[in-house]
Amino acid sequence: MDDNEKYGEWFGDLSSFLPGVSIDCVIIGFDLNELNILLLKWKEGGHWMLPGGFVHKDEDMDHAASRILEERTGIRLPYLKQFHTFGDLDRRANVPLFNPVTPLGAQFKEMFDWLEQRFISLGYLSLVDMRSSVPAPDLLSETCIWKPLKSIPDLIYDHNLIANKALEQIRNQINYLPIGISLLPEKFTMKQLQILYEEILQKKVDRANFQKKMLKLGFLDRHEKQLTGGAHKAPFLYAFNREKYNLLLEKGIGYMS
Amino acid sequence: MDDNEKYGEWFGDLSSFLPGVSIDCVIIGFDLNELNILLLKWKEGGHWMLPGGFVHKDEDMDHAASRILEERTGIRLPYLKQFHTFGDLDRRANVPLFNPVTPLGAQFKEMFDWLEQRFISLGYLSLVDMRSSVPAPDLLSETCIWKPLKSIPDLIYDHNLIANKALEQIRNQINYLPIGISLLPEKFTMKQLQILYEEILQKKVDRANFQKKMLKLGFLDRHEKQLTGGAHKAPFLYAFNREKYNLLLEKGIGYMS
Repeated sequence: MDDNEKYGEWFGDLSSFLPGVSIDCVIIGFDLNELNILLLKWKEGGHWMLPGGFVHKDEDMDHAASRILEERTGIRLPYLKQFHTFGDLDRRANVPLFNPVTPLGAQFKEMFDWLEQRFISLGYLSLVDMRSSVPAPDLLSETCIWKPLKSIPDLIYDHNLIANKALEQIRNQINYLPIGISLLPEKFTMKQLQILYEEILQKKVDRANFQKKMLKLGFLDRHEKQLTGGAHKAPFLYAFNREKYNLLLEKGIGYMS
Repeated sequence: MDDNEKYGEWFGDLSSFLPGVSIDCVIIGFDLNELNILLLKWKEGGHWMLPGGFVHKDEDMDHAASRILEERTGIRLPYLKQFHTFGDLDRRANVPLFNPVTPLGAQFKEMFDWLEQRFISLGYLSLVDMRSSVPAPDLLSETCIWKPLKSIPDLIYDHNLIANKALEQIRNQINYLPIGISLLPEKFTMKQLQILYEEILQKKVDRANFQKKMLKLGFLDRHEKQLTGGAHKAPFLYAFNREKYNLLLEKGIGYMS
């Protein structure tokens, strides 16, 4: 397939999309060590970006978010949560996605003009277990990979802002909602849960105090010890109690609930 | 001014607006007794609606929200918070705003056609002290008034859903953020604060427990007693300590902070 066909396939019929509306997905994964974000690198120009795309005129927003994520990264998530819409005038000022003076840009003038219009973008967010979410780049991307949060490169347009806004929301929600069920394996140690919280809060927390708080919430079931060499020091494994976890999701953990 | 001129003035030049994008404002007020929502009643057809409007092509979203609110209700708020974007395909299916078979609809065919396109709407939210926010209807609205939450009428399009989503967000946030500084007068009784919380949570809370929680948060300064007939039973007046209130806004009240 040559570049023309690739672009044609990727974009489809421009007139089938809502003008000026896009979706960008912030997908956060955890590898038991640190938080990562799913990024694409655009072949033409080498820009890093969030997985994003356009919305069909006959498609609900939430559906478009799942479709776009799968088309661009191969990762299938039935539900992503909308978290904020980005509509500042200058949000796409920093760099054009297509360069009209390259052969490709000249050839796809219609697409280029279409992309030049003002876009507002709906940000969608999901937290996933990295080991069960293996990314694959779409036709126009050089690569699709997990990048540690501490080394996010410069992203195209306002995508760094979009990613930061999503992370800010996760940090806020950790104060009143349970977290981790979609980020951790079925069984995990208290230490692994603590690392997850520390990664989200971006600060160290006291071990004993953390364990006490978590156990008090009542959403963890204790299982057998983790099998290691020295069994006498082996940590217990825990799993989320789905029923209690979902109850906390519904009523919140806050001081008024 | 005849209807033509009114419509012309109200809409301005349609081509100056972003196609398919609108803003709807959920403005919640408190009168020390119950929560109210700011609603408009459209002259043609009598539909109730949230104050909403369109975004100029050269205007940031947040700016548009303030402008639209002021144009439609006379209430000037420098900042409204974006809370969710509504983009379902069928969100405006229930009723057309203009009826093309009326003389007005036929005359404003261009406007009517424009309104027929799919719209996605950014929901914006603000909490205000009702006594300092006196609404005035725009040219095309019959009335602009505060309606108690418990008697919200059927609204146009998906506006009931938009209002409910905003209220749900306030209810969630009350679990980890301070609330009330923009809803209450400068000084208020503990009972008035409790009524505000009960209105938001939609349930009764225990008086002694509530007072204990609120005082423990440290964001209230106690002032003189409220002057009433029987001074021995007069309740204390409180005011928010802005510094501590803002600190809690920033770091959250939750169990991890």
